[in-house]
Amino acid sequence: MVSVSLGANKYGKAENRVVRIYRDTPRHEIVDLNVSSQLRGAALAESYLTGDNSVVVATDTQKNTAFAFAKQFGVPSAEEYLLALSRHFTSSFDWIEGGLWQAEQYEWERILIDGAAHDHSFVRKGQGTRLASVQVIDGATHVTGGVKDLVVLKSTGSEFAGFPRDTYTTLVETDDRIMATSVTGRWRFLPEAVDAGIDYNGLYSEVSEVLLATFASVHSLALQQTLFEMGKAAIEARPEIAEVRFAMPNIHHFLYDLAPFGLDNPGEVFHAADRPYGLIEGTVLRDGVAEAPGAWVDLPTFV
Amino acid sequence: MVSVSLGANKYGKAENRVVRIYRDTPRHEIVDLNVSSQLRGAALAESYLTGDNSVVVATDTQKNTAFAFAKQFGVPSAEEYLLALSRHFTSSFDWIEGGLWQAEQYEWERILIDGAAHDHSFVRKGQGTRLASVQVIDGATHVTGGVKDLVVLKSTGSEFAGFPRDTYTTLVETDDRIMATSVTGRWRFLPEAVDAGIDYNGLYSEVSEVLLATFASVHSLALQQTLFEMGKAAIEARPEIAEVRFAMPNIHHFLYDLAPFGLDNPGEVFHAADRPYGLIEGTVLRDGVAEAPGAWVDLPTFV
Amino acid sequence: MVSVSLGANKYGKAENRVVRIYRDTPRHEIVDLNVSSQLRGAALAESYLTGDNSVVVATDTQKNTAFAFAKQFGVPSAEEYLLALSRHFTSSFDWIEGGLWQAEQYEWERILIDGAAHDHSFVRKGQGTRLASVQVIDGATHVTGGVKDLVVLKSTGSEFAGFPRDTYTTLVETDDRIMATSVTGRWRFLPEAVDAGIDYNGLYSEVSEVLLATFASVHSLALQQTLFEMGKAAIEARPEIAEVRFAMPNIHHFLYDLAPFGLDNPGEVFHAADRPYGLIEGTVLRDGVAEAPGAWVDLPTFV
Amino acid sequence: MVSVSLGANKYGKAENRVVRIYRDTPRHEIVDLNVSSQLRGAALAESYLTGDNSVVVATDTQKNTAFAFAKQFGVPSAEEYLLALSRHFTSSFDWIEGGLWQAEQYEWERILIDGAAHDHSFVRKGQGTRLASVQVIDGATHVTGGVKDLVVLKSTGSEFAGFPRDTYTTLVETDDRIMATSVTGRWRFLPEAVDAGIDYNGLYSEVSEVLLATFASVHSLALQQTLFEMGKAAIEARPEIAEVRFAMPNIHHFLYDLAPFGLDNPGEVFHAADRPYGLIEGTVLRDGVAEAPGAWVDLPTFV
Repeated sequence: MVSVSLGANKYGKAENRVVRIYRDTPRHEIVDLNVSSQLRGAALAESYLTGDNSVVVATDTQKNTAFAFAKQFGVPSAEEYLLALSRHFTSSFDWIEGGLWQAEQYEWERILIDGAAHDHSFVRKGQGTRLASVQVIDGATHVTGGVKDLVVLKSTGSEFAGFPRDTYTTLVETDDRIMATSVTGRWRFLPEAVDAGIDYNGLYSEVSEVLLATFASVHSLALQQTLFEMGKAAIEARPEIAEVRFAMPNIHHFLYDLAPFGLDNPGEVFHAADRPYGLIEGTVLRDGVAEAPGAWVDLPTFV
Repeated sequence: MVSVSLGANKYGKAENRVVRIYRDTPRHEIVDLNVSSQLRGAALAESYLTGDNSVVVATDTQKNTAFAFAKQFGVPSAEEYLLALSRHFTSSFDWIEGGLWQAEQYEWERILIDGAAHDHSFVRKGQGTRLASVQVIDGATHVTGGVKDLVVLKSTGSEFAGFPRDTYTTLVETDDRIMATSVTGRWRFLPEAVDAGIDYNGLYSEVSEVLLATFASVHSLALQQTLFEMGKAAIEARPEIAEVRFAMPNIHHFLYDLAPFGLDNPGEVFHAADRPYGLIEGTVLRDGVAEAPGAWVDLPTFV
Repeated sequence: MVSVSLGANKYGKAENRVVRIYRDTPRHEIVDLNVSSQLRGAALAESYLTGDNSVVVATDTQKNTAFAFAKQFGVPSAEEYLLALSRHFTSSFDWIEGGLWQAEQYEWERILIDGAAHDHSFVRKGQGTRLASVQVIDGATHVTGGVKDLVVLKSTGSEFAGFPRDTYTTLVETDDRIMATSVTGRWRFLPEAVDAGIDYNGLYSEVSEVLLATFASVHSLALQQTLFEMGKAAIEARPEIAEVRFAMPNIHHFLYDLAPFGLDNPGEVFHAADRPYGLIEGTVLRDGVAEAPGAWVDLPTFV
Repeated sequence: MVSVSLGANKYGKAENRVVRIYRDTPRHEIVDLNVSSQLRGAALAESYLTGDNSVVVATDTQKNTAFAFAKQFGVPSAEEYLLALSRHFTSSFDWIEGGLWQAEQYEWERILIDGAAHDHSFVRKGQGTRLASVQVIDGATHVTGGVKDLVVLKSTGSEFAGFPRDTYTTLVETDDRIMATSVTGRWRFLPEAVDAGIDYNGLYSEVSEVLLATFASVHSLALQQTLFEMGKAAIEARPEIAEVRFAMPNIHHFLYDLAPFGLDNPGEVFHAADRPYGLIEGTVLRDGVAEAPGAWVDLPTFV
């Protein structure tokens, strides 16, 4: 006779496309989010085991709350908005012990007319998507910020050599290649900084700049090395950051063989490949800070 | 007894990811293209009818040529590069009577370090994708430029009212709504301007700015009206443009009903919907210019 | 002074996800559609030129009609349902002269329990997506059926040789390769067959089988040849079909070079590439049938 | 002075599209995989910290090995093939302590001609994608199988009622709704079953059938309940399974309001929404089996 039980679980409403316009003055502001809310709690097991929904805060209710909070609480930053949602659910319902709240944020720039920024017309920036998450788990609250799909490339200043060779190794060493990646990164905030309050929007801008500048300025011996330097620079730039995690595909640009056509190709014509790609992942930790594995539970892939 | 024959056809290699680096000085330039090449010619019918490939310029050869031309001819602009490819194929092979050459172009910005633009490190701009095509058909050559996925939004200055009502009409008239769209547009160049030579890159920048500024400044009574004004402005801005075609989804932002929660919502909280969406398409023609239906054959969807 | 005018245009609501359940008996039926409706008419120019919406049948109204007709008219087949929509719009509004109605259809199979097909539980088939369109243009009505994303592969029985060689040709001739493609095809119905009534669902099943069987049984000298034979077989199978158009990417499977590892590779291990891919397009016409270019206006890409 | 160190990391080559044809007899077999290989080991820290690649088994080498093993070891099942890769890397290189190897598998069916299955022509099944992973971590090896994107729907036999109501609750209780989801699930194999050898392909077929049959036959009070019953049934069906994890979006089908048009809608016409969607996740554990958190490290999202 087989007997089973319920393990890790959570449930909620994913990808609520919440758009908040601030129109108190003629100069509107826009905050554009993709919000997911999921709840956890031991009492919720009954819905799985017997279909008893008496403590199931409906996913539709979570959706309504996400939209209502955009009005009631506002969205000063994605992180603060998610924190407000997390506090609401864990305080309003005794049996909700935790959850995971996530947001993607699409940035908009004001449209320029003869150099003047328009009051209420915007064009989507399209350069990376901002990320935020709040995780409440095991009695602790973890906040992360981040970015995904920030695509960068350097056309020189990247080597890859000195690696071991075995039966299956055919790769030629290079002292000059294109290095390109689509950065996905998340930074975990120190709990004490969260408690003290953080300028999350300003931090995002600064960290984004630091990541780009570090990618640009590091002479790269390996994408791993670049990744580590980028995380280090972010931590050095902002004391609120406890650790940074990255997943970086190595988007291969292969030198196209033009020799059959009697042409040389000194690093000028490349084929940008889709698949396969290298996939380099790593974490950079501020020394002396407690690790927080709970912060990363159920976040997509490595980051 | 059923008898059949071959109708319209073409063949080639699609989505060659050609990346061209200019590295003649330490300040590198990058041109990043997704190139498709397809050929037409009456003699090619044999490959369909009997599998006789004796005049089939292999799709692999078309690919090699696309990469080789990035070196031999260079990529001063996507349009000029495609023109060079079109001339090569139609002049090198007697039986190649025409074809369609297309490119998507991904723009890159230099990474800034303390405000200084880096020599060889770039971040993908991500704001719209540039389009170009060259069509050789019925003895004529047509060149178009364009843009796709340029996402814009205005948080006020848009109405929709005065439409007819029938049994199936439930839409409420509005004098203030969010208007958002993802602009896909193509502009056809006047043949005489193509012959005289065009600053395609400068034109793209200027037209992009004009499209954004017009979207922003027009008080919109309908997305159709905004579309027409955008095309008109582009034609007014640049004498090289014969016509502009647009496909514009109306990306609906629905005011979220917060009344059940005792909250008013004066244009502040919206749900951005995915599907369905309005789809508005239209062409703006410079008066006195000959139409050129051949230019648009086999281009994706309306544009 | 620049003067402009309005050219080709249409507008409507795209991608209405209409799901119709027939539940008159305990054995339910499901029809799952993605429906787009767009209208044309000279009078609509005013909405573009001046924002006068007095004859603009709102895209929201088109959406409501699409859902209401799924109840009122039902969905005996996608083609008949779209025909009903086209008749409604062109007959209910004097100024609507034509339009384009399109549907994608997702097929579902009944879930089997111990070999018995369940009454109301389904699993999505996932093998190709059915297509249908009705175009009313220049006073004529054109109906097409079709399929997209039908992915097929043969592991032998495909050659490619005898093609011309130039400076840019490096491809080696082969008498045994993998041939794989994702079939997108549309068949135009003879107007007299449409008038007489067609078993569209039965035809779709039969044509799908014929396409697969022909792909399988033709020893291929070129994907062009296979394409033509597939269209010919469809026309031979069903007298209602006037012509068939195909777009077939040649999904390259490259033999992986295992020689550096001391291994031979007699057609056993391949790398399936994403981009670039061959792109072969062609039309097969029943002899003696009038061409109908209007049928294909604004349909996506070649088909 | 800020000081940092390296935390969790791994690196490798992702999405190798390995296609293996078995052609020993005229009746070919095809195995079609998307393979990712990533390695871990303390010694690899140097590549991050200093760019020293002396122990970095190149991602290109991992790719070559994946293709070579498809020939040398073959692909009896995705799980066995990944196990072979994992053994190779951890035994060939002293410093490689673990890693994560993943595969997606696309199933193909033989094309039928007059009811007869063709020897070497196939059509992609398209009904769900098979998953497999091998994780070597902390000295243990974990093997999982799974499926993703298996889309199912039941048009009745699903309720949702009895949930708590708060300020933000507007959802109406229902005793008859459409329930649809896209099943992603992974089952972890008992280590002793892995050691003894498992018929992974037979198990996949059987579990897929059991999941579908359970979805169909359970009268659902909540998607949570259906999820649990599906996991329970899989564990009951196969003694090799230690636990099953699921992520199931609740793909909402909203009854379209036809009342404004004077039509009733007794569960016949629905709008299938894209976003937001419910997202229900849960784990079903065989009682008496040790948990294995290491098995799930870095697998995408919840599963």
